[in-house]
Amino acid sequence: MTGNVTFDDTICAISTPAGTGGIAVVRVSGADALTIVSKCWKGIDLSTAKSHTAHLGRIIDTTDGSTLDEVVLTLFRTPHSFTGEDVVEISCHGSQWIQRELVNTLIRCGCRAATGGEFTRRAFSNGRIDLSQAEAIADVIASSSRASHRIAISQMRGDFSRELNSLREQLLKFASLMELELDFSEEEVEFADRKALVTLAKSIKNVVDSLADSFSVGNAIKNGLPVAIVGETNAGKSTLLNYLLHDDRALVSDIHGTTRDVIEDTITLGGVLFRFIDTAGIRETSDTIENMGIERTFRKIDEAQLVLWIIDGTTHPDTLKTVAGRILPGVVQSTRSASATAPAKQLIAVVNKSDLMTEEGKAEMDRELDNLLPVNAEKIFISARQRTNLDRLEKSLIDAASLPDNDANEVIVTNARHFEALIKAGEALSRSIQGLETGISGDFVSQDIRECMHYLGEITGEITPSDILTSIFSHFCIGK
Amino acid sequence: MTGNVTFDDTICAISTPAGTGGIAVVRVSGADALTIVSKCWKGIDLSTAKSHTAHLGRIIDTTDGSTLDEVVLTLFRTPHSFTGEDVVEISCHGSQWIQRELVNTLIRCGCRAATGGEFTRRAFSNGRIDLSQAEAIADVIASSSRASHRIAISQMRGDFSRELNSLREQLLKFASLMELELDFSEEEVEFADRKALVTLAKSIKNVVDSLADSFSVGNAIKNGLPVAIVGETNAGKSTLLNYLLHDDRALVSDIHGTTRDVIEDTITLGGVLFRFIDTAGIRETSDTIENMGIERTFRKIDEAQLVLWIIDGTTHPDTLKTVAGRILPGVVQSTRSASATAPAKQLIAVVNKSDLMTEEGKAEMDRELDNLLPVNAEKIFISARQRTNLDRLEKSLIDAASLPDNDANEVIVTNARHFEALIKAGEALSRSIQGLETGISGDFVSQDIRECMHYLGEITGEITPSDILTSIFSHFCIGK
Repeated sequence: MTGNVTFDDTICAISTPAGTGGIAVVRVSGADALTIVSKCWKGIDLSTAKSHTAHLGRIIDTTDGSTLDEVVLTLFRTPHSFTGEDVVEISCHGSQWIQRELVNTLIRCGCRAATGGEFTRRAFSNGRIDLSQAEAIADVIASSSRASHRIAISQMRGDFSRELNSLREQLLKFASLMELELDFSEEEVEFADRKALVTLAKSIKNVVDSLADSFSVGNAIKNGLPVAIVGETNAGKSTLLNYLLHDDRALVSDIHGTTRDVIEDTITLGGVLFRFIDTAGIRETSDTIENMGIERTFRKIDEAQLVLWIIDGTTHPDTLKTVAGRILPGVVQSTRSASATAPAKQLIAVVNKSDLMTEEGKAEMDRELDNLLPVNAEKIFISARQRTNLDRLEKSLIDAASLPDNDANEVIVTNARHFEALIKAGEALSRSIQGLETGISGDFVSQDIRECMHYLGEITGEITPSDILTSIFSHFCIGK
Repeated sequence: MTGNVTFDDTICAISTPAGTGGIAVVRVSGADALTIVSKCWKGIDLSTAKSHTAHLGRIIDTTDGSTLDEVVLTLFRTPHSFTGEDVVEISCHGSQWIQRELVNTLIRCGCRAATGGEFTRRAFSNGRIDLSQAEAIADVIASSSRASHRIAISQMRGDFSRELNSLREQLLKFASLMELELDFSEEEVEFADRKALVTLAKSIKNVVDSLADSFSVGNAIKNGLPVAIVGETNAGKSTLLNYLLHDDRALVSDIHGTTRDVIEDTITLGGVLFRFIDTAGIRETSDTIENMGIERTFRKIDEAQLVLWIIDGTTHPDTLKTVAGRILPGVVQSTRSASATAPAKQLIAVVNKSDLMTEEGKAEMDRELDNLLPVNAEKIFISARQRTNLDRLEKSLIDAASLPDNDANEVIVTNARHFEALIKAGEALSRSIQGLETGISGDFVSQDIRECMHYLGEITGEITPSDILTSIFSHFCIGK
């Protein structure tokens, strides 16, 4: 369970968000936490103070003996602390000056400034949590929707770890059976019933595959369900997007798209995070690079799990065919090429400017769309300008997201590193199943099983190289 | 000691700075704090938990019973808490989503969202601190330099309150002597020795006056010592200001000047906060409003306690006379009108572009300045471009600030409200002294003494009207 790093020093950092507030918390962790803090503390004798107790006192500026602040200090003794080491949490007044000076004072008394995620890394190294739980802490802090939060909390509390441990136990049983056979290989005895082994391997592979499959959902929950908005320039895409993004009910944040001319924005509707891919920029390019533009639109549609086709209700329904001819093949094409990581996508045709349409016009548009659209597609008449029917569109978006009810029992993978390890574990399992079925030598099969266990061990951090650990924890905020 | 407000509900708020961090703290205070938190808490039974103890547990989303977060909860039982009420501090993971949902959950369980400064107001109303200490908490949080921090901490810890209480005791003794005399007025007896009373009143007035006087220093420490930068447009004012403001050693912040064309920036040098008033904008106005510009420059000089006159070293020393004729009368004039609130100002003549000057040129400039400058003025040759002698200029600024060594025994007033109350208290004392000396009737003198006590009581909050209290606490951040 250790990350092969020794921590012989004591670290400190501001653990609360940067800035000014009522209070702020500076955290100290390490073998010398109590000794170091005692040097700048006026209050109860920390060497005799009980674990999990809070004490009012003063922090002294060691340069001149003046009072830096009146604080509340809380003590957590090893091993009953977050890091497993002695931990002191100092709750000071939330001025930036005090926070900085408090850290400076602690450093003068013998602390080292903590690096990003170092408290969590110590918790991992001291066996308080495994690597997937440590990663989940970063996800818990970063999560901005109910769904992503749920998954992260579940992973942090160890649900994923328990699933992996159960897999590991089954693989160990499998491997020991295989290796028992190897020990007696000269006697040409088959201790393990190969048919039973294949059944066991397949059932393990089912679990590994379903965990890997859950990544497409997990990724959508964590990074937002990708929604492509397509349609002619004057159809009202921007008005609709602005409405959705600037609605008071929606939480809005910006993601800077990797492609210069594609804008991505995320909002939370009904507890689901949506990532809107506005392809407006592409459609506005000049004719000469029109093909390139269409290609990029298709790529974006391919990424999306949901496509909103915005139609200008005031155009003649006949013109829809041309647009559909450009847009719908992309949708159908990408639906066909759907893989485990890109599940079947949903199309919603949104007829805008319904306030300017006659009843006959609506009926005609309705018929024309029924002819053009795939059977599972939905159509909604709205007016973005007059805000008509927009609540129904929001509801359709939420329904179309159709994310599974993420109950406590279901483990969903949200981390690309875990997904890759699961894919590799699954491949190793496939090889072992193939080996068993083709009657290959037991030591080759055993090797594949060990490889599978290796990849699962990478997720929990049992066999994760130090540089990967460093990379993982470097993405944490300071003070956690 | 109470603010005439009853607090029968329980409040909650995020107390740490806004944003995402490793952890955040949500504070709950009120008679029902334990009962309310228990509704969404899974962990130790709070009704039996001891005061000042920390407990690991979970906060439950009451809408569906899921785990909102794993938290550390710290308990402070009445009256041994910041507010004097039962207080629960919940240390959660620092995601904005969790912070918001945690507050929402507490509100669903029966809390009310706290208003700005409401925790501190409760501490004041419950007699845990007096009003000047409560105000000092806001100052502690806002302070950005060592000096302003020291004063705020000293005031928060009650040094100012002790000084005021001592004054109050002397005034009470004074008043009771006066009123004893009144009781026997028909018998024309003078119990109180009027000479002794005058001596006592004068000694009290000395303390009140010196406290009021300290406001000019206190205000400079809190809001920055005002430094006016004057001189011809091409003298290098901007280069110098940019150097000072963007120096790595300096803490820079922006103050939006109330006058459109005056830029004010604050920096901290050697623990002293300086507020630079760049009058460059004024000097660049066209000739037609030149007079108006000069007038405004003088007003700015009048506000300043320190004037930096930037001189272009490459101009002929003869031209200095004209500039000095415009600038120096302002300095001298305002020095003459110096009041308690605008102490004598210091002039530093800064000869810039010294790298382009010959030795003879420097000597000539030196002589010319000696003729022009007041005796207490300083002169420094620098090159802002080549960064020559700028460390000496910084040292001169720090020396010229000459703020008193703010030791623990000295009380400095930093609050305009306190300054005004002290001025009024001093006026009432003056009237009582005059009354005693002119043999006026004892009841008039006694009335003045009571008025003086009233104004001092306004500072500690004993007799502060509710609307003034509301105004004071509304400037606090939420969660404090």
